[in-house]
Amino acid sequence: MGQSAELTRRVRAEDLVTFAEVTGDDNPVHLDEAYAETTRFGGRIAHGMLAGGYISAVIGTKLPGAGVIYVSQSLRFRRPVRIGDEVTAKVVVTALDEARARVSLSTICLVDGKEVVAGEAEVLVPRRGA
Amino acid sequence: MGQSAELTRRVRAEDLVTFAEVTGDDNPVHLDEAYAETTRFGGRIAHGMLAGGYISAVIGTKLPGAGVIYVSQSLRFRRPVRIGDEVTAKVVVTALDEARARVSLSTICLVDGKEVVAGEAEVLVPRRGA
Repeated sequence: MGQSAELTRRVRAEDLVTFAEVTGDDNPVHLDEAYAETTRFGGRIAHGMLAGGYISAVIGTKLPGAGVIYVSQSLRFRRPVRIGDEVTAKVVVTALDEARARVSLSTICLVDGKEVVAGEAEVLVPRRGA
Repeated sequence: MGQSAELTRRVRAEDLVTFAEVTGDDNPVHLDEAYAETTRFGGRIAHGMLAGGYISAVIGTKLPGAGVIYVSQSLRFRRPVRIGDEVTAKVVVTALDEARARVSLSTICLVDGKEVVAGEAEVLVPRRGA
């Protein structure tokens, strides 16, 4: 309870191209600067799910024991993430259900101390041996 | 209401490598076949957030008007997605809130007709002109 883990990644323009290719989400707000400048964002923004992937990275690589199983994730996209932003994805343990081997997590992404993505996750922690 | 859109993508081994690189989620269950065979999955599985990205692709590219803004997404990872799987991401309009310009969506991913990811999303549809 209260245990936390985080990672920080800088969003590069090429990450948006790669993410578009691997997912198929080639919406021009992510790829076409001239188009994106005409939108409310005033320039290209990252795919919200890229920030979701950073949360997944904390869960998949920073929680003790790489064997946790992702059960659910909610994401609220609160502010745009832009090229050059340093995004810190942070996960905090908020509840343990030992009987069901479930752990609840608060999951946020921050840029310059401001929450860009908020959400919660649940993971299953397989019992090993006894 | 009831309007739907979908896309289908086949998961390739290289997509897991690319997704790991772009997000930082290099958990070996996605990348290391020998390790993955020792887990409950019996082999490599896709990142859950990759399927989330397919949902984002439907929302970002198949909904009428590319200008919708992603407000929130919930994802429940119900079954593993494996290399070679053909994943159909499907989005159905479940509610319209005209006053707030919000649209609620049911969002699922299917493999061989079985739900691998379930969830809901909310998007904002900016008014253009009148």
